[in-house]
Amino acid sequence: MTPATVTTPTEREIHIERVFDAPRDVVFAAMTDPALIPEWWGPHGTTTAVDVMDVRPGGAWRFVIHNSDGSETGFRGTYREVEAPGRIVQTFEWEGMPGHVSVETATFEELGERTKVTSVSLFHTTAERDGMIASGMEKGMNETHERFDAVLARLVSAGH
Amino acid sequence: MTPATVTTPTEREIHIERVFDAPRDVVFAAMTDPALIPEWWGPHGTTTAVDVMDVRPGGAWRFVIHNSDGSETGFRGTYREVEAPGRIVQTFEWEGMPGHVSVETATFEELGERTKVTSVSLFHTTAERDGMIASGMEKGMNETHERFDAVLARLVSAGH
Repeated sequence: MTPATVTTPTEREIHIERVFDAPRDVVFAAMTDPALIPEWWGPHGTTTAVDVMDVRPGGAWRFVIHNSDGSETGFRGTYREVEAPGRIVQTFEWEGMPGHVSVETATFEELGERTKVTSVSLFHTTAERDGMIASGMEKGMNETHERFDAVLARLVSAGH
Repeated sequence: MTPATVTTPTEREIHIERVFDAPRDVVFAAMTDPALIPEWWGPHGTTTAVDVMDVRPGGAWRFVIHNSDGSETGFRGTYREVEAPGRIVQTFEWEGMPGHVSVETATFEELGERTKVTSVSLFHTTAERDGMIASGMEKGMNETHERFDAVLARLVSAGH
């Protein structure tokens, strides 16, 4: 699939659009399934462990990415809104920069048998937003999306 | 002491100024001492328990307020910067509204034997900022400050 479109429409936001080749129910269910996270969440060459993933309003999530060199790094947040299959609002925090928290609002839109996921990340400051962009976020995200494409292809071919 | 001055200089901030009748070292040390939190953190008639209070960059804090009716409510956050005795930056989250995280920057300024503490809370959105104001935050904060005055008076009279 075409890589995500990444824009910065305001001073504190990152706007991401990506189409996935699966129906909306499948995309939403796959994205919120703890058992599938290790298969796709993180760049190529990494393995992600789910520490917590309590997909309900107020629930916590925490994933740990294990890199091929043995290092690891954690990410965490809180689900604020979960409205299957159309919308998730959650916080996002990289444990390497504790206390810098963004809010991600993801919306899932039906495009026939495909699904457009729009994710808007809102930061407290422009500096934090720009720090996220400078971290190489886009490359890692594109790799994550490619891995997620593969998960979706398997689910669709299995008749989900 | 005179109650805090509370203003909203921008669309996403609450600006609070309060003078305390103790030297800056004493105010900073008292405010960051887990053993003292139960004596002053929270409105009159409440008792606060410290679950975690790891006052260093990246450290977590979590306090639970026990009300006189037996109910309890938690607050938590992460210390981002700790520079004794002049500055603390930390996140603040009420567990009744999980995932709504503000950033508090407190600066401690010497006024002779008194100390002015300026605290700026930054929210992701104006709605979250206004929700905090509408929650009765100012009354509770003023009571917390009165209780903290009493702690400081004891420390100063004990020769700290």
